[in-house]
Amino acid sequence: MLKVESALTVAEGKLNLIPRHAVDHILKVIENFSPDLQALRNSTKADGVVVPGLVLQLKEAVGSPDNEYVHFGATSQDIVDTSLVIRSKEILSIFSSRLKRLVQEINSLIQDKAHQTLMGKTRMQSALPMTLWDRVRNWQEPVNLLLTELPRISDDVGKLQLAGAVGTLDKLGEKGAEIRKVMADILEIKDPLGPWHVQRLSLARLASYLSELTATLGKMGTDVVLMTQNETATALLKSGGKSSVMPHKKNPVDAEILVSFSRYNSSLLGGMHNALIHEQERSGTAWTLEWLVLPQMFLTTGAALNAAVRLARVVEFPSG
Amino acid sequence: MLKVESALTVAEGKLNLIPRHAVDHILKVIENFSPDLQALRNSTKADGVVVPGLVLQLKEAVGSPDNEYVHFGATSQDIVDTSLVIRSKEILSIFSSRLKRLVQEINSLIQDKAHQTLMGKTRMQSALPMTLWDRVRNWQEPVNLLLTELPRISDDVGKLQLAGAVGTLDKLGEKGAEIRKVMADILEIKDPLGPWHVQRLSLARLASYLSELTATLGKMGTDVVLMTQNETATALLKSGGKSSVMPHKKNPVDAEILVSFSRYNSSLLGGMHNALIHEQERSGTAWTLEWLVLPQMFLTTGAALNAAVRLARVVEFPSG
Amino acid sequence: MLKVESALTVAEGKLNLIPRHAVDHILKVIENFSPDLQALRNSTKADGVVVPGLVLQLKEAVGSPDNEYVHFGATSQDIVDTSLVIRSKEILSIFSSRLKRLVQEINSLIQDKAHQTLMGKTRMQSALPMTLWDRVRNWQEPVNLLLTELPRISDDVGKLQLAGAVGTLDKLGEKGAEIRKVMADILEIKDPLGPWHVQRLSLARLASYLSELTATLGKMGTDVVLMTQNETATALLKSGGKSSVMPHKKNPVDAEILVSFSRYNSSLLGGMHNALIHEQERSGTAWTLEWLVLPQMFLTTGAALNAAVRLARVVEFPSG
Amino acid sequence: MLKVESALTVAEGKLNLIPRHAVDHILKVIENFSPDLQALRNSTKADGVVVPGLVLQLKEAVGSPDNEYVHFGATSQDIVDTSLVIRSKEILSIFSSRLKRLVQEINSLIQDKAHQTLMGKTRMQSALPMTLWDRVRNWQEPVNLLLTELPRISDDVGKLQLAGAVGTLDKLGEKGAEIRKVMADILEIKDPLGPWHVQRLSLARLASYLSELTATLGKMGTDVVLMTQNETATALLKSGGKSSVMPHKKNPVDAEILVSFSRYNSSLLGGMHNALIHEQERSGTAWTLEWLVLPQMFLTTGAALNAAVRLARVVEFPSG
Repeated sequence: MLKVESALTVAEGKLNLIPRHAVDHILKVIENFSPDLQALRNSTKADGVVVPGLVLQLKEAVGSPDNEYVHFGATSQDIVDTSLVIRSKEILSIFSSRLKRLVQEINSLIQDKAHQTLMGKTRMQSALPMTLWDRVRNWQEPVNLLLTELPRISDDVGKLQLAGAVGTLDKLGEKGAEIRKVMADILEIKDPLGPWHVQRLSLARLASYLSELTATLGKMGTDVVLMTQNETATALLKSGGKSSVMPHKKNPVDAEILVSFSRYNSSLLGGMHNALIHEQERSGTAWTLEWLVLPQMFLTTGAALNAAVRLARVVEFPSG
Repeated sequence: MLKVESALTVAEGKLNLIPRHAVDHILKVIENFSPDLQALRNSTKADGVVVPGLVLQLKEAVGSPDNEYVHFGATSQDIVDTSLVIRSKEILSIFSSRLKRLVQEINSLIQDKAHQTLMGKTRMQSALPMTLWDRVRNWQEPVNLLLTELPRISDDVGKLQLAGAVGTLDKLGEKGAEIRKVMADILEIKDPLGPWHVQRLSLARLASYLSELTATLGKMGTDVVLMTQNETATALLKSGGKSSVMPHKKNPVDAEILVSFSRYNSSLLGGMHNALIHEQERSGTAWTLEWLVLPQMFLTTGAALNAAVRLARVVEFPSG
Repeated sequence: MLKVESALTVAEGKLNLIPRHAVDHILKVIENFSPDLQALRNSTKADGVVVPGLVLQLKEAVGSPDNEYVHFGATSQDIVDTSLVIRSKEILSIFSSRLKRLVQEINSLIQDKAHQTLMGKTRMQSALPMTLWDRVRNWQEPVNLLLTELPRISDDVGKLQLAGAVGTLDKLGEKGAEIRKVMADILEIKDPLGPWHVQRLSLARLASYLSELTATLGKMGTDVVLMTQNETATALLKSGGKSSVMPHKKNPVDAEILVSFSRYNSSLLGGMHNALIHEQERSGTAWTLEWLVLPQMFLTTGAALNAAVRLARVVEFPSG
Repeated sequence: MLKVESALTVAEGKLNLIPRHAVDHILKVIENFSPDLQALRNSTKADGVVVPGLVLQLKEAVGSPDNEYVHFGATSQDIVDTSLVIRSKEILSIFSSRLKRLVQEINSLIQDKAHQTLMGKTRMQSALPMTLWDRVRNWQEPVNLLLTELPRISDDVGKLQLAGAVGTLDKLGEKGAEIRKVMADILEIKDPLGPWHVQRLSLARLASYLSELTATLGKMGTDVVLMTQNETATALLKSGGKSSVMPHKKNPVDAEILVSFSRYNSSLLGGMHNALIHEQERSGTAWTLEWLVLPQMFLTTGAALNAAVRLARVVEFPSG
């Protein structure tokens, strides 16, 4: 959020909305700023959003007369949304690396084994013989697809929010659009060309993407669980979860939790779509709901990617 | 489904997998075919899918020896999925028309009124004055966006399924890919280039799109409900729902149900993502779940579009 | 709904709120009343609820001067809610029979087999030997529990709605409570002792119960699916679903769809809880959402009970 | 969990399953036990559950020969489930206090104001005049109902889990039922009389209860938000959330987030019902899903209760 306030200050300086010396002063203060976190917690409880308390602290640190240029023309939602967008892009970049690693692991897994015969199963019954690749392609192809699409998702979600109190950038007069453009350049995100305080499709799509990803991993997990059943044994685990009382057991823990993560994200996705209805010019209700849902979805997806990579490293397909 | 069986027959004839006279015979039978619906109901209850019973009836109607060429090399899921895809594209085409009409209605609604002053509302409290357009743009821009994206969604979902019993097109030998291509051409849908029996992201994305659409309309509905409150009265309805006992009332029924439809689709979307985990080569469980969820989402979205158009026709914004 | 209007008329006659001859006249009209369904469809679309159009038709059929006593003191929601309650109790009574049949079928299934050895499975891996009963008790005990609880659920949901336009029974003056009591007696449901237009916990609990029921059957379905795998074969099906191309297959269709039904109800349950927030004195939005969700849950649960009974009839446990 | 292991040890000592000196030794070790948390984290990642690592550490701390009596006859799930149950009861006890405080606050709120006239609102339109109590009773009555029911919910969820590796208490021989009874007495929870490793209705019902509670508060929140609109002003807030740029605003933050909390819990409830299908004798998948969902629901409900109490303290109803 401080990074966003900085970019706002720089952009407004560049367009002569605030004086040069105020820009320098505010930037210096932000650079060395360490918020009173307990005070932030209290103000957030009262205000329902962290920004009013944060701006208050910033203004106090800047002092008169430059404090009038802090957060100038912006509204709480501009700061929170843009901050969310920046962090989301960073997380997606981490996910991109994990997806690449997963593709490699699945490649290693199947290498030299692709043509191995496997009994195909439909509706949980033996159907016809096929190859191992005929099953594993259904793990790998969607992972590849999602990896390919990640930049578009990141780009779509990665847009600046700068719209002012009621979405009209009223305080910035004619310079609003230019400031938005400069800020977007500084923060290396997109200029949205308009307000999106209550147009939240990009966030819902991000959530859909996360849930698609965990479901894709959940399909792989389900297949591994079924293949590692003792009677089936078309897959084995080099290592697995221990039981507290049955030393002979090797539980397919990472495969199982992939399914749990997917079902969790599925439920959360409904919450995120319930959060799409933002009434009037800003919705405290729907916005707060986003904050409850989206972090859980990120955490879940990140954990799922790690579990999938771990799993792919320990699965073996015994020949015949 | 009969259309899909026809296209399969034609494609297989063209590639000399089945004899010309059998093609002609089967096509003629299909053209005049009227299934025994009660028998279909019974067989569907037993088989969990309509195709085995349908193919049985078709084969009986064709008779020996050509009956061996009916449904040749396909599996139930090929027929059901492709049929779903074709119907989905048709429904999306209807939705496209409704979206266009809605854009026009919103345009008419705002025409000459765009610059009218409206008190902006954030967190349900009066914030700052703005224009009517500053609110209505948040109804129209996402509708426009969704209209623009509809062809891509339709294209993404519109792909042939032809994969055979376990996804390997085993019975079609080397000609599988060619037959798939010819069938896709005949049915004017995409050749998927591979099996997607258990790769269901395109259906989940269709569901996300439908829910995004109803949420977008739900935002418009919420705003209208709030604006038509007696004390607010920044919007009026030319006509509204009657009460059974209070003749003075004009209930904003179409605005209200837009919110209901959106919340319903949000819940269903979670179900559709729960249906993403198709185990092994075909999942009776996840597939059936799709059939429960998706039709409800289509019906809900279609009704929402109609309600939104009706609503846009009766809303008025009193000046001052 | 006509039954509710009748009971209202009788109760109001008994308490001398409307004259005897008007009571007789209205009851006779209702007895022979056949609504114009197309007109009802149109009025429902306009009013968002069927009652205003129905009452209009009824009043026309009664004619002046007795028409002023039709629907006297009630509001649309009184009629719709009470009608829902009556139908819900009838459906629950059907479910009770199906649950009893299911208990019997599970008893037959396990009879003479209870002590048969079965390998216990935890986290999808072989754990320790146990008996068949150690697994099947987890199908039967929750079914028994739910059967035992059904009367309480039915009783809890089975309460009259009679509250008038804003929940105050304003038009019935001092006699409101008495009329409510008499009506409840006539309809053989509970007197709620107050309004519940916006207190909807009993309906949410009904929905929870339905979802608990389908989940209980879904657990049984999952187990049967796993036990009928070819390599496991600790359960066999006397009959199963046919494949359109693999005559050797016997698909555990009824077991699979039990899982589908459970996941569907789980999603719908979230919708029903989203419908719990009824604003002010009557919510068009939340009320309509109930109408979308609850019928689907009833249909799903009814189908699940039938599938479970069918399934229990065809499962066999081969000895050793 | 250590408390549960202690109770197990004591009970087994009492029934002479393990020698007295071993009991004393193990209890003393547990009393002073401080687990290596990093090692626990690592083992939990590998095993999918914390107990195997915890028992390993405990056994090391006890040392030979008494270590064979640690965790004797129990399985991981016995410890985790019982621990969950104990903590759940403690949380519910906190919720009970908050509910009581809320009832008092609502009483204070309405005191002397109950008969004040308020325009009743149905379908968001003015309907008929009524009293303030006619609205507020719909906040208070469900809160009272839920408070009354809390002991039953707490009792229902509060049952010991002790079933052993596959639910048969195999290692405890004939003494299993007695040990379960003694342990339940020690821990002051119910003896379940049987295993419930895969019978999870009590947890789903706990989740339903939590969601019913947040929805009840969400209704109160929605009403307050609507009443504090500037044009309506049938309620005022003594204090509210500040805006970062509009000093005149007093945002109804606590009322808004009550709605967010309710919608969040609604989505999570679907997840909890999805977690009801525990396959075979123990489900890693469904069990992990419970752990993802239930803590979020507890946190959400606890926060909602606090917000509701805060809200009730600042609402005022201006006369006339």
